[in-house]
Amino acid sequence: MTWTRFKTHFYHNADLGVSLDISRMPFADDFFTAMEPRMQEAFAAMNALEAGAIANPDEKRMVGHYWLRAPHLAPTPELANEISSTLTAIKEFAARVHSGEVAGPKGKFKNLLVIGIGGSALGPQLVAHALGRPRKDKLAVHFFDNTDPDGIDYVLDELRNQLAKTIVVVISKSGGTAETRNGMLEAIAAFKAAGLDYPKQFVAVTGVGSKLDQTAQSEGWLARFAMWDWVGGRTSELSAVGLLPAALQGIDIQGMLDGAAAMDVVTRFPTTAQNPAALLALMWYFATDGRGAKDMVVLPYKDRLLLFSRYLQQLVMESLGKELDLQGRVVNQGIAVYGNKGSTDQHAYVQQLREGVNNFFVTFIEVLKDREAKTSLEVEPGVTAGDYLQGFYLGTRDALSEKSRQSITLTVPDVSPRTLGMLIALYERVTGFYATLIGINAYHQPGVEAGKKAAGGVIALKRKITAALQAAPGTFVTVEELATQLGADVSAELVFKILEHLAANRGSGVKKRARTPWYQSKYGL
Amino acid sequence: MTWTRFKTHFYHNADLGVSLDISRMPFADDFFTAMEPRMQEAFAAMNALEAGAIANPDEKRMVGHYWLRAPHLAPTPELANEISSTLTAIKEFAARVHSGEVAGPKGKFKNLLVIGIGGSALGPQLVAHALGRPRKDKLAVHFFDNTDPDGIDYVLDELRNQLAKTIVVVISKSGGTAETRNGMLEAIAAFKAAGLDYPKQFVAVTGVGSKLDQTAQSEGWLARFAMWDWVGGRTSELSAVGLLPAALQGIDIQGMLDGAAAMDVVTRFPTTAQNPAALLALMWYFATDGRGAKDMVVLPYKDRLLLFSRYLQQLVMESLGKELDLQGRVVNQGIAVYGNKGSTDQHAYVQQLREGVNNFFVTFIEVLKDREAKTSLEVEPGVTAGDYLQGFYLGTRDALSEKSRQSITLTVPDVSPRTLGMLIALYERVTGFYATLIGINAYHQPGVEAGKKAAGGVIALKRKITAALQAAPGTFVTVEELATQLGADVSAELVFKILEHLAANRGSGVKKRARTPWYQSKYGL
Repeated sequence: MTWTRFKTHFYHNADLGVSLDISRMPFADDFFTAMEPRMQEAFAAMNALEAGAIANPDEKRMVGHYWLRAPHLAPTPELANEISSTLTAIKEFAARVHSGEVAGPKGKFKNLLVIGIGGSALGPQLVAHALGRPRKDKLAVHFFDNTDPDGIDYVLDELRNQLAKTIVVVISKSGGTAETRNGMLEAIAAFKAAGLDYPKQFVAVTGVGSKLDQTAQSEGWLARFAMWDWVGGRTSELSAVGLLPAALQGIDIQGMLDGAAAMDVVTRFPTTAQNPAALLALMWYFATDGRGAKDMVVLPYKDRLLLFSRYLQQLVMESLGKELDLQGRVVNQGIAVYGNKGSTDQHAYVQQLREGVNNFFVTFIEVLKDREAKTSLEVEPGVTAGDYLQGFYLGTRDALSEKSRQSITLTVPDVSPRTLGMLIALYERVTGFYATLIGINAYHQPGVEAGKKAAGGVIALKRKITAALQAAPGTFVTVEELATQLGADVSAELVFKILEHLAANRGSGVKKRARTPWYQSKYGL
Repeated sequence: MTWTRFKTHFYHNADLGVSLDISRMPFADDFFTAMEPRMQEAFAAMNALEAGAIANPDEKRMVGHYWLRAPHLAPTPELANEISSTLTAIKEFAARVHSGEVAGPKGKFKNLLVIGIGGSALGPQLVAHALGRPRKDKLAVHFFDNTDPDGIDYVLDELRNQLAKTIVVVISKSGGTAETRNGMLEAIAAFKAAGLDYPKQFVAVTGVGSKLDQTAQSEGWLARFAMWDWVGGRTSELSAVGLLPAALQGIDIQGMLDGAAAMDVVTRFPTTAQNPAALLALMWYFATDGRGAKDMVVLPYKDRLLLFSRYLQQLVMESLGKELDLQGRVVNQGIAVYGNKGSTDQHAYVQQLREGVNNFFVTFIEVLKDREAKTSLEVEPGVTAGDYLQGFYLGTRDALSEKSRQSITLTVPDVSPRTLGMLIALYERVTGFYATLIGINAYHQPGVEAGKKAAGGVIALKRKITAALQAAPGTFVTVEELATQLGADVSAELVFKILEHLAANRGSGVKKRARTPWYQSKYGL
């Protein structure tokens, strides 16, 4: 019975070495038939996108991440040429760094510091960890992926006395991302403090003509690589954003591209039952009722894929978490994604998955190859640590099925550049298909601006507060006094939060005289 | 209006430097009054627990993690003495390692390898990252936290040629956790291959008399530290499980204990409005309707707290994710927890939080201190990277509030041993309170056994499959043939999964002859 259902719905592609098991999703027999017209719409929409349609009307741009691994599919020969020549430039630059032709003031580069956030960090971090070979990588990779001063110091401590042998790649599509700009300025200050001529060690990956591009050009940075407006941040891993850091680390980037291209070919096939991306998109629809009714728990049973769920968090949630559908109706869509790795996570929350609130479906990612070495230690007669890893995956899957908790299993042969390329391409297309199924635009992010704008307001208010305190040195005021002084539209709550932050950091000069109740405390310079 | 509500509900403890803002949770004015009887029950239940009641009836044990930081509260002088003497032993042992009195065959230890999983890894990993000082730590810390052979090799590669200077701490409360046992055996094999007398470098943290304890004793390991049955895995960070690795790393463990003890004192106070743990528990109840209706998104705006949400995932989900309530009724409780760090996560999924499916509430964790250095670079005139970090937190909070997305903010002064101890103690008590509010047992995990048992079945089946293939070398069989041969109750699906895994790993000797359709493929030795 189970086996019959398994056999009926099992997708297996021997060429790719990829399998997909959806048999533990309890869809009815007529589900695929009922969904087929919408799935065909999704295939058609994807065809239009790949042909160069304006798929992001907000920003009036094409969406071309699929062309990155098949430049001949780009809508113009110019674009195809740009993609190919950038790839060649990346490979050549990495080779020159590895040979020592491009080197720092004390010889060959040993470390790579990547500065980026969001789409300019998650993909590179995933790849660096998934495909890295400790002590064998060409460069040891570090990241600034935030504007946390202490987080920056943490990484600078790791690189202490190593900056002369560190190459820095600053990644910002717009060239104006504040966190990345701040990280870059902190890095520049550290390089200067170490007596280094930083432009000779800095590389930019950004849109041509952006603020970052202009800085890199005018300061004579080591190199610049282009990002294009038709590659979104969350689908930029196979552009210079992801490929340059990976190539510098010594990873086979052509393998990643080839894997992605091979998956693209398979997932273009417009026959649902033979298209793993279509099957997955339909399972998302089935599991979440097409409205995000359940969370997606992603559990790769492989340490190297620990960051894959964080990568998917961005790809899925930023693409699908939308207020309006294509007709402008309020739909509040999305699918929440979380997970780390198995079997580790079993010890954290399989208790809840099996017994608790049934508000999720699991995607298990199974990796068939255990390790590089041919043989494995027997931890018991005839049994290896890898057998246990598989045993825990299969055991958990059964324990969940027993309690009617839904799961999908995606099986891949290994964690290689090719496989990682396949995984990235697969989920890019699933996300695109699913967006059409639910009638939303997967390629914009209108909700992100509000937070950035509000943050800008906080920074402006912080300047006003500092100015007001500086104007009356030695005078101590309460939050409410200062807020009133700054104007009727000023939020006392924000004034309080900013003053508390300033008072906690000696460099600000702001001092606090604590009083009870807390809002009677006074602040001054 | 906002400010009035903020002022009314703001919890601020000047001694601890901790604040809690629940004003953006839209509870009605009578919510606290309505909940007060239940909250008083929660205080009473916690009192009984702290006095030594049998709070885990499944395992017939007391629940005593609060005694770890206040031994005088333990129900017997013997227990108090055990706690104190173990703490002294940990501190003395760490001091002897740091001084070099306890050393490896090539001198002072430089690295620490911790082998554990779940409660025996998440806490130590959180602390190692949150409180670590790169290049200044007494020992560099590494983890085996899974049974993934490749993950183990990855860490061994990092430690290449360093094993002589590596001290290993194997942590397993029961002494029988398979993943940890496998990691230990792989580590022992690596030490032997390096020509090292491993027992002189291995330390056990486990229950007295456990299998691991017996091994450590009979092999003459360097040291053994006791775990007690009255400390659950997910609340074991302030027992030897967490304290020994932290002390070896050079972290001020007394500071952690003192912080936890201080928070315990404050959160024992049975006046709801003046008890941050009670307030948080009630907010969880309000947000999730007391039935896990919303996910808890945990967003610390501090890189060092990146792993805090993973730590909370275990603490909250394993404690609260329960099928039955205390009366034995099916309730399927729990709260799903996810998150990484701000502002990084803003670029990943604030789009969905603001615009998408409204199935969550956020807990922001704000850290007031920016960095160790007194002054910060100005990234713009008068503005630091830390100002931006706060700006993004406040901006996102407002952007979410605007769209009626709920949030709580917990503010702490810094990320110090004391603060981390406070955070751990706070959330332990919130979880305990909330369990009483919803009438479930927070201190057992009955759902975990099923998966482990099923995994054991898979391992047993794997042995049968290997034996069957070995009995007929050179004979190739299909999945269905082998399943039939092995017995009527054998799952063909499991046979297929196991054969595919074996065939993908050369060391198994199993070969696959691929056929179309895939289930006609044959396997043999």
